Order: sequence, then structure tokens, then C-alpha cells
Amino acid sequence: MRVQVAIIGAGPSGLILGQLLAKAGIDALILEAQTPDYVLGRIRAGVLEQVCVDLLDEAGVGERLHAEGLPHQGIELLVDGTRHRIDLAGLTGGKQVTVYGQTELTRDLMEARTRAALKTVYEAKEVMVSDFDTDHPRVSYLKDGVRHEVECDFIAGCDGYHGVCRASVPKDALRTFERVYPFGWLGLLSDTPPVNHELIYAKSERGFALCSQRSLTRSRYYLQVPLSEKVEDWSDERFWGELRQRLDGRANDALVTGPSLEKSIAPLRSFVAEPMRFGRLFLAGDAAHIVPPTGAKGLNLAASDVRTLGHALIEFYGGSLEGIDRYSERCLRRIWKAERFSWWMTNLLHRFPDTPPFEQRALEAELDYVVHSLAGRTTIAENYVGLPFED
Amino acid sequence: MRVQVAIIGAGPSGLILGQLLAKAGIDALILEAQTPDYVLGRIRAGVLEQVCVDLLDEAGVGERLHAEGLPHQGIELLVDGTRHRIDLAGLTGGKQVTVYGQTELTRDLMEARTRAALKTVYEAKEVMVSDFDTDHPRVSYLKDGVRHEVECDFIAGCDGYHGVCRASVPKDALRTFERVYPFGWLGLLSDTPPVNHELIYAKSERGFALCSQRSLTRSRYYLQVPLSEKVEDWSDERFWGELRQRLDGRANDALVTGPSLEKSIAPLRSFVAEPMRFGRLFLAGDAAHIVPPTGAKGLNLAASDVRTLGHALIEFYGGSLEGIDRYSERCLRRIWKAERFSWWMTNLLHRFPDTPPFEQRALEAELDYVVHSLAGRTTIAENYVGLPFED
Repeated sequence: MRVQVAIIGAGPSGLILGQLLAKAGIDALILEAQTPDYVLGRIRAGVLEQVCVDLLDEAGVGERLHAEGLPHQGIELLVDGTRHRIDLAGLTGGKQVTVYGQTELTRDLMEARTRAALKTVYEAKEVMVSDFDTDHPRVSYLKDGVRHEVECDFIAGCDGYHGVCRASVPKDALRTFERVYPFGWLGLLSDTPPVNHELIYAKSERGFALCSQRSLTRSRYYLQVPLSEKVEDWSDERFWGELRQRLDGRANDALVTGPSLEKSIAPLRSFVAEPMRFGRLFLAGDAAHIVPPTGAKGLNLAASDVRTLGHALIEFYGGSLEGIDRYSERCLRRIWKAERFSWWMTNLLHRFPDTPPFEQRALEAELDYVVHSLAGRTTIAENYVGLPFED
Repeated sequence: MRVQVAIIGAGPSGLILGQLLAKAGIDALILEAQTPDYVLGRIRAGVLEQVCVDLLDEAGVGERLHAEGLPHQGIELLVDGTRHRIDLAGLTGGKQVTVYGQTELTRDLMEARTRAALKTVYEAKEVMVSDFDTDHPRVSYLKDGVRHEVECDFIAGCDGYHGVCRASVPKDALRTFERVYPFGWLGLLSDTPPVNHELIYAKSERGFALCSQRSLTRSRYYLQVPLSEKVEDWSDERFWGELRQRLDGRANDALVTGPSLEKSIAPLRSFVAEPMRFGRLFLAGDAAHIVPPTGAKGLNLAASDVRTLGHALIEFYGGSLEGIDRYSERCLRRIWKAERFSWWMTNLLHRFPDTPPFEQRALEAELDYVVHSLAGRTTIAENYVGLPFED
């Protein structure tokens, strides 16, 4: 089999890239190790930057997002009992974010792909990528016990942090940067109305909490917990009780609790691999970088990577190498700023067991400064809604 | 002897406080362990915030400062060879800083004190402060071999980091916060015209450098050096050679070198003691807190402390306790913001031997973000010119 682009991974980044390429008449195959239901079952991000929404429009999958997504024009920081609203729209000349669950987005992308009869192989096992240091990269995979071979012009590694693509790069060609945080987020999903119209990021003596949402009837709450915690020790009742202690009276009055649909603990990690191009293999999204979820940047960064990659590949088939040659550098500048922001938000809002006392006070002073300064709030707002593309 | 206020230390904070109290008709005595010449010989800060200039006007010592001080409306950040101007005035609605050496300021204050025939005892040795947990604090000192006793209403500890006042507070009444940096600043003073109209803060592969100045004919340059360096190993020639390597071509073209008037290595330290009031003893300036010099905040913070203290004491003699009761809290909020800013500037612009690679890149991304964002530059500008008083 021969295609122009082999995309490894059918998560949002692979699917968006597939749409962008299909619209440009570029022949792409997506290989995914899991089943469609497994992919849809992943509970992930839900806050889309405007540039991400624009990209989904460009990819032709924005219809339901616009009908059902919830535009948010602000977020609330609840700092030791006092609320500070970050007026995203007012501070950024009208930019906003859109709350729309990654599950819904993935479903829209899958359906668009099915409608257009584009090639996707689910349950493609033992994927191998090779020869990407030549003009004729190769991909092979096992499906129903039979090994298949694919020749292509390019491989797009959209297969996540644990995927095969980054693992296939020679060790000495890769530089990695990592920060592991000494805590995780315990998340609970419930079919209850959100406690607040806007997201609440809460810093408290007992640790961080986030009141997020997926829709007007589905809420997502998170608690900072030590990594040693086990999810089975957290009954729904215990979760709601702890959440209440990290919120203010107004939130407690408004909080509607209910049975959890899902509950899990995720570690927090910052990770960047450089570069993001190796000959004819490109990494995009979680395959190349991870952010802690505090800044809501994971899905948005993946989207901006595949935007850059899609445009680069379209340029290539139009006769220009510039896009693919500059892919890594363009992405990384934006990625590092988002990594910085996510790290900074995480440092500012969480309790760290080992922060030296001076640094602890300096961070508290930073938060005090930033929420009380117009310029300070603007730095949060412009990063949260997404920095502009510079290309 | 009896006075209303005994001020320990005749540096800028003690002298300014003395002026403020004298203007209000409050009887104060200043005790200083050193000679006037020794105090004048200290080479220190030279960048005054507007609130500091306003305070010196209020204290009646602004005349020469206005005639000879150099208003600066911007600073330059030289980041790995690229200049980014921080337009202080443009970003803060017209605020600026004034370059005027601490030595000159001290001289003005001393002369004003002499003219007004106010009581100052130089070479007051073995100062002891006591009974400040009562309404009748006491100070004693040795002068020319004779011990003198002073009764007073209040003691103002303006005697610096190594002074007797903080050391006289019961250990368990004091909480201290400290950060020691793994490098120092090697400073050189010379009678050469400044390399640039505005200060240049330079981050380079070889470490930080600062091009500062005291006047149109006197320059002050600094180099980040390891703490293990010895000043005697730094000839003037070596200093100028190293400085050149940390600057850009434009600065090298403009740099005028000359023999050093003074050369010394100072360690960098962040330090805060809480609270700043113990009964009838108040700490102000370096006695209570130290900042690394990167943000030019040391003298300015001392000035804002004695402004708050002077007003509090005047209020006390007017019949209100509110000022002295709120002194510590009011000062500390401002101090912590300045500590935060100085720590942040230091972290961003210096090379640290042990920064983990992820954090190193995150800091570089922060600098990249902040100099390219209007809001980011505004946060630097508004902190550099001095945050407004909130009382």
C-alpha cells in the first residue's frame, strides 16, 4: 500500500491533521492501536482556545462545536477564600475560550472521517516506523494477525507520550526536558450542573482544586492529591467533602453533587522532546510534549502543532520546503511558552511539600501582585486564551 | 537623656526618618556606630523610584536631587545579544526613575541634619536597645569611653542587616525567610561616561552584567561572578574584557573604559524578617529585609518603610494608634512584592549552575514571552518604577 502521509494515532491531533490533509487533496492513512470506543472513552481536556476553534472550522468540523460548545469569557481564581475574576475577553480585546469536551470533539472528527470515507485502521498492532531518514519512509502494522506494509512520503507521529514514533528516533538525536510534580489530580466526572458558569481555579491551604465542566449538565472536578493516594480510597462522598473544604461559601451554596461517572488520578508532568522533526518523521501533540493540565493547554498545543504540520505538508506538495524545514522551530517556540505558562500556573496554585519558605512567600507575593495588577491579569488572560501564532 | 524617638543607624533610612520627624516637630536622636566619612564611603544603590523622590521632597532634601539627578524613562534588557527596551514611562502612564547615587543622597541628608542642628551621635559604640516591650524603651551606647543612657517612646531600627536592633528581638518572636544565591556581583566604579543613556541589564552565556551609572561622568558596572572569585584576581583590564564579552556590538562601540575608583564583590541575598514591629521597636530597611540588587529595590524599600514609619509615628503623636499597629503589615505586603520582583529578575537574568534543564528552558521561555508581550513588559515596568502605595 502507498499513501502520501501515514498518520500514527487517531486521537484529536491525528484526526484533525487527517481532515486538513483530506481537504487539501492529500492522501493520508490513519493507524490507531485501539478501538474507536476506547479512543472515545478517554476523559480529557475540555477548554478550547480560539485558534483551536478556528482550526476546527478550517478542518470542517466546527458545526456541532459552535452549536453546543459554551463560550467562556472569564475564569475565576479563588485564592485562599477570595475570588479574583480574570476577564479573558475584556483583557484580550474580546478573545474567549470554548468549553467542549475532547470526547465530543473526537466524535465529530471520527464522524467527518467516516462520512468522507477516509482510510483509518483501528486496532493496528505492533506498528513500526522506519526509513524516515530517506525519502521513502515505511510503516508496518499487524491487523488481525496479518502484517501490512505502507510506503509513504511522510510519517506524522500523533501517537501520544507512550507512542512508537518518538521511541523510534535514535536516542542521540533527541533531547528531552522533564519536570515531574510531587502530586496528581484526582478527577471526578458527574452529570450535575456546573457549580459556576465559569471555571474556578482554587488555591487553598488544603491544596488546589479545579471546578471545570463539559456542558451545562456535566461537570468535571479535580483535587490535588499526593501521588501516594489510591482512587479506591476516594468514595464520591469523600471527594465532595474535600472539594467543599477547598471552595468558598458561594461555591458551596451552588455546588450540586451526584454520583461519579468516572474517577481517576492522573500524575502531573511537564515534558518536551526536541526537535520535532527527524527527516520525514514529524512528532505532534503529546508525542512531543506534555503539560500539566493547569493551563488547559494540552489539546490546544496538539491542535497548533497539527495546524503547523498540515500547512507545512500542503506547502510541500505545492512545491515549498520551507514549512517542513521550519516545523520544529515554529512549534517549539509556541510550545515552550505554553509549557512555561502551565508550569507557572501549577507552581502558583498548588501546594508543594518541599518549597523552601522564602520561595513559598515569593510565590504568594507573585499571586497577590498578579491578581491585583491589570498588567498581571492580562498576562494570565492572554496566555489562557492562547498566544497568537507568530508565523 | 530623653527623646521621643531613638533612631539607630544614620544611613539613608535613619536620616530620612529623622527629617520626616523633625519636620513634624518630633524630637529624635540618631545613633550611628561609624564616622560620617565611613557612611558616605559606602558605594550602594543609585536608582530612585518616584515614590522615593516624592518622599525626599517631603523630607525637604530634594533640591540637589532634582538639579543633578538623571531622570530615566526606560531600561534596556540585552538578552543573548538582542536588545529589548522597557519603556518605563510609556508603560506606566509617565512614571520614571531617577539616577542619583546613594552617596550623594546621604550627603544631602547629612547636611540638612547639620543645618537644622538635629542630634546625631556618630561613633556610638556598643549600642544596646531594651525595654521595648514596655512604654518606656531604653537605648544605651558608649561614646569616647563613657556609657550614655537614653529614654524614649520608640526605637527605630535603621541599623542594617548586621545591626543590633533585629538581633535584640527574642528569637521566638521572629520568623526569617532567606535565599542565598550561588554567585555574587563584582562591581567597578569609574569616572567614565556611561556606555548608554539608560541602564543595560544583560543576560549572556557568560553570565549577567549590568551597566549602571551615578552621573553623566561616573559609571558603575557589574559582572555576575562565582562566589569563589577574589577581587584581587580582577585587574581593571580583565574586568573590562569580560564586560565586553557580555555586551553587544553597540555597547562595545560606545564603552569608555578607565581606571577603577572602587572594585568589590558583593554576595546576593534575599532576606525578610517578620514582623517588623516588636512593641515599641520598629525595624526598617536592611534591618528587616535584603533584596538582590537586580531590581534596584534596596534603597527604595528602605525609603518606603520609613515613609510608613514616619507617618505612623506622627499619627501616634496626633492621637491615633492605627499607623503603628498596621506598620508591619503595611510594609510587608509591599516588601514581599519587591522581594518577589527582585528574585524573579535575578532568576531570569543570571546563569545558575544548578538549574534543571526543564526549568532553564521555562525561564528562557518566560523571558521570551515577557519581552515580546505588552502586558509582560508592563509588569516589569510597573514593578521597576515602584508599585503604588496601597494605604
